[in-house]
Amino acid sequence: MPQVISIKDNDSLAARLAVEMRADLLIALSDVEGLYDSPPGSDDAKLLDTFYPGDQQSITYGTKSRVGIGGMEAKVKAALWALQGGTSVVIANGTHPKVTGHVITDIVEGKKVGTFFSEVKPAGPTVEQQTEMARTAGRTLASLVPEQRSDIICAMADLLTERKDDILSANKKDMEKAVNTGRLSPALLKRLSLSSSKLNSLSIGLRQIAVSSQDSVGRVLRRTRVANNLELEQITVPIGVLLVIFESRPDCLPQVSALAIASGNALLLKGGKEAANTNRILHELAQEALSIHGVKDAIQLVSTREEVEDLCRLEKMIDLIIPRGSSQLVRDIQRAARGIPVLGHSEGICHVYVDHEASVEKAAKIIRDSKCDYPAACNAMETLLVHRDLLRTPVKIHAGPRFASYLTFSPSEVKSLRTEYGDLECCIEVVDSMQEAIDHIHKYGSSHTDVIVTENEDTAEQFLQQLDSACVFWNASSRFSDGYRFGLGAEVGISTARIHARGPVGLEGLLTTKWVLRGDGQTVADFSEQGSMTYLHETLPVGQHFSGYRTTS
Amino acid sequence: MPQVISIKDNDSLAARLAVEMRADLLIALSDVEGLYDSPPGSDDAKLLDTFYPGDQQSITYGTKSRVGIGGMEAKVKAALWALQGGTSVVIANGTHPKVTGHVITDIVEGKKVGTFFSEVKPAGPTVEQQTEMARTAGRTLASLVPEQRSDIICAMADLLTERKDDILSANKKDMEKAVNTGRLSPALLKRLSLSSSKLNSLSIGLRQIAVSSQDSVGRVLRRTRVANNLELEQITVPIGVLLVIFESRPDCLPQVSALAIASGNALLLKGGKEAANTNRILHELAQEALSIHGVKDAIQLVSTREEVEDLCRLEKMIDLIIPRGSSQLVRDIQRAARGIPVLGHSEGICHVYVDHEASVEKAAKIIRDSKCDYPAACNAMETLLVHRDLLRTPVKIHAGPRFASYLTFSPSEVKSLRTEYGDLECCIEVVDSMQEAIDHIHKYGSSHTDVIVTENEDTAEQFLQQLDSACVFWNASSRFSDGYRFGLGAEVGISTARIHARGPVGLEGLLTTKWVLRGDGQTVADFSEQGSMTYLHETLPVGQHFSGYRTTS
Repeated sequence: MPQVISIKDNDSLAARLAVEMRADLLIALSDVEGLYDSPPGSDDAKLLDTFYPGDQQSITYGTKSRVGIGGMEAKVKAALWALQGGTSVVIANGTHPKVTGHVITDIVEGKKVGTFFSEVKPAGPTVEQQTEMARTAGRTLASLVPEQRSDIICAMADLLTERKDDILSANKKDMEKAVNTGRLSPALLKRLSLSSSKLNSLSIGLRQIAVSSQDSVGRVLRRTRVANNLELEQITVPIGVLLVIFESRPDCLPQVSALAIASGNALLLKGGKEAANTNRILHELAQEALSIHGVKDAIQLVSTREEVEDLCRLEKMIDLIIPRGSSQLVRDIQRAARGIPVLGHSEGICHVYVDHEASVEKAAKIIRDSKCDYPAACNAMETLLVHRDLLRTPVKIHAGPRFASYLTFSPSEVKSLRTEYGDLECCIEVVDSMQEAIDHIHKYGSSHTDVIVTENEDTAEQFLQQLDSACVFWNASSRFSDGYRFGLGAEVGISTARIHARGPVGLEGLLTTKWVLRGDGQTVADFSEQGSMTYLHETLPVGQHFSGYRTTS
Repeated sequence: MPQVISIKDNDSLAARLAVEMRADLLIALSDVEGLYDSPPGSDDAKLLDTFYPGDQQSITYGTKSRVGIGGMEAKVKAALWALQGGTSVVIANGTHPKVTGHVITDIVEGKKVGTFFSEVKPAGPTVEQQTEMARTAGRTLASLVPEQRSDIICAMADLLTERKDDILSANKKDMEKAVNTGRLSPALLKRLSLSSSKLNSLSIGLRQIAVSSQDSVGRVLRRTRVANNLELEQITVPIGVLLVIFESRPDCLPQVSALAIASGNALLLKGGKEAANTNRILHELAQEALSIHGVKDAIQLVSTREEVEDLCRLEKMIDLIIPRGSSQLVRDIQRAARGIPVLGHSEGICHVYVDHEASVEKAAKIIRDSKCDYPAACNAMETLLVHRDLLRTPVKIHAGPRFASYLTFSPSEVKSLRTEYGDLECCIEVVDSMQEAIDHIHKYGSSHTDVIVTENEDTAEQFLQQLDSACVFWNASSRFSDGYRFGLGAEVGISTARIHARGPVGLEGLLTTKWVLRGDGQTVADFSEQGSMTYLHETLPVGQHFSGYRTTS
């Protein structure tokens, strides 16, 4: 038992009772969110997720705090006393009318609510600190010249082959653990496993990304002479801080890291628990490569203990989330990511429409490829729409008794026309016209990739123009919907969102733009009726390809 | 009193009790969200917000319903009985563990939860029906040739002057009501009021948008020869359905309508109650103009009764929200818009940094313009950062007693360095270097527009490159941050988001892209190791400017 606490108020009473009862947890509800590192309401105040007794000195209660010095100090004192007595403590806000009901259940479920008092200080930085570090280093990464970013990616490619043994032995640990626990399916085990040849092709892929990186950040997209000596440029810049969440596949880590470096973005990586050892060494190698230009911290590996939901709460710190994995993962993240944009697609319900003027050979070839080439892919066909006229045939067929016995089974009716089978399984439906095919796809499709097979160019162009999907194809397999096949170089993913990037996304999906205006002291008053200047708005050639390196480098 | 209901179950008991007590509202909590128009879980099932007794026939309970026919039928029967007896009824889900606490308070607050049983059927369509109608007509609008969209906008411009008298008399009604209730400030009254000259300049603005519209939808951005007879195009297409929410300013309506038409988007408009009469007639004129090409329904005016929060729940039906109004409006909408992207900026905390190598004349001119030209604008300066060296002066000044008496007041210390004053008010802070200015802006700015004043080109280029804001200016007023001044033509708004559109946004902010692939029966198997084809990925000139009109029109 720690020293006795004198019961002066409800806080000390609660602490005393909790310890006497040997309670596991004491929840102290207050009228502020928890403990801050600076006076609450000040510019820099950050809520502390966890408070370690050793950190006590670094806390400013602040005279401006609404809660007053006394109130919070008494709470903290009581909390520390309870902690010494073996009871954990959470101080949280209990006054918010809408969430009060949740606070207690959320705390009990271990969610990040209020401030948790803990004896054990984890070794590494918190995820908030990691995000800050990544953003700062990311800004330096963005201001390097393209060749330096390319250097880093090549260094990473080298390390993948040089340190092959270390990587494979870490991966072996993960594989053994996965096999022993027996919780991963053979397919997942295969995705978890790395081999010498996998590392080699990874390394080759990285070198390709290094090449694309030369042409990404700082590209001038538009130049305008606004007026004499007043020139405007729109240039590409990184988005900022990316959060990439990936499942068992550890080869994702170097790939995504290379894409982030190529585009000058900071990166938070969250991999699956089952690949923890492999991810750790791959991340070390990425940081080693980043070190050659002093930007080691631009890529951070987030602890596997962090919940995706908690990461999504960092909405002011993370600019884009990219989930790489099952459509279930993407759906979960889209739901959790309040306010943070998500680049990805949760569904790929792709259609092939065979028009009555289709070439039967082409149709058969395209249908087979769209469905069977890789049925689990998001760009595989799920529903085949057939023009009604194709059902009619002048030939009358009679079935012998044995053949008839095979015909007694007709396909079962679909439960939903919105199904993504992801397997050697599909739905066939009849439509009366191209227009009806379009209506069907608009109603049941996921705006991913849809195909028309026809020899009639008019019909094809109508379909291509009217159909509102990210990818619309004429006489080609839906499987072409892919960054590599489109010739975009490095593929970031496929997006079914309607803003920013749509369809297969290359490196440019990780870029945004900024406007740079260079003047000579101009003001808008100079352009008023009384002013001496007039707007020219002349479009200038985007000759000088890269911006901002005229005098620096 | 209606006929007696026999008490067979808890539903009929509740209905009987509620009516006997003359309760205003009976809340029946069930294990489904409410009443659907089709069997819950089926492809087409939609939750009914409101159920009118006359509609009873159109409901399918469905044998597949988890709730079973009996359960829901009994509830509906009891609800209808209670309604006849003068008690309103809501059937809602009471089993969702996280929200149960909210359900009852939300219903009492009049939010759209579950199904509300009402005697009075409103005259017009529901907002869901309006959105559907807009999307369908919007697709036709998008498939018109650019000249047709331009026609519509010009027709609208004509109507604004032809029907001037009708518009001004509707506006007079709104003004009189506003003056009588006395709830609008003089500034807001001024924004509400229309005049003959305002309508003329609106009409001129619309004609400019009609010109920009020629070059928006269907523009080819990229062409690639993927392989022989397999050509890929990336073309611009409308985003889909826009929701624009605007405050008292009714001139917003024709402007925003013209932008939507120019970009081929469907549009839901939600204006302020105070401008209801003016908005109604302006919307009628917009629909009249749309009718000339059969797309009247592409623009819908949402009833002023609809809450913004309820509109934001239409997340699968609305693709982009554009708030036009105060930063408070934008913040509210950003908070409410879960999952729907919002184009706008809630804050404009712009900085001017005066370097020690600045020209004092230019600095004075730029500072005055940045702060004083229009202090309420989002691109006005809020914080002036001054290099420390500029504070030193070799001249020693002594103050006479009267002068000294004026000097006893120094500016009060800021409460927060993150303040947007929006008035003739600003903060001045000293920094040690350009680097410190950048750090300050990154920490306290809103990434809107930031300016450096210096004669040193090296310093300027470092600032322009390293600073991570949407607009970065050298020796020019922050007030240039504006679509018109940038030469973008029609301005949609200014965005501080990091994806999609950033900074001043022209018509292209209302566009997305789609990929069109034209082949000859190719499959990806043709490109496999056993296949006969190889990828070429040749970049083709974007010569033929518009896509898709080769054979149609």
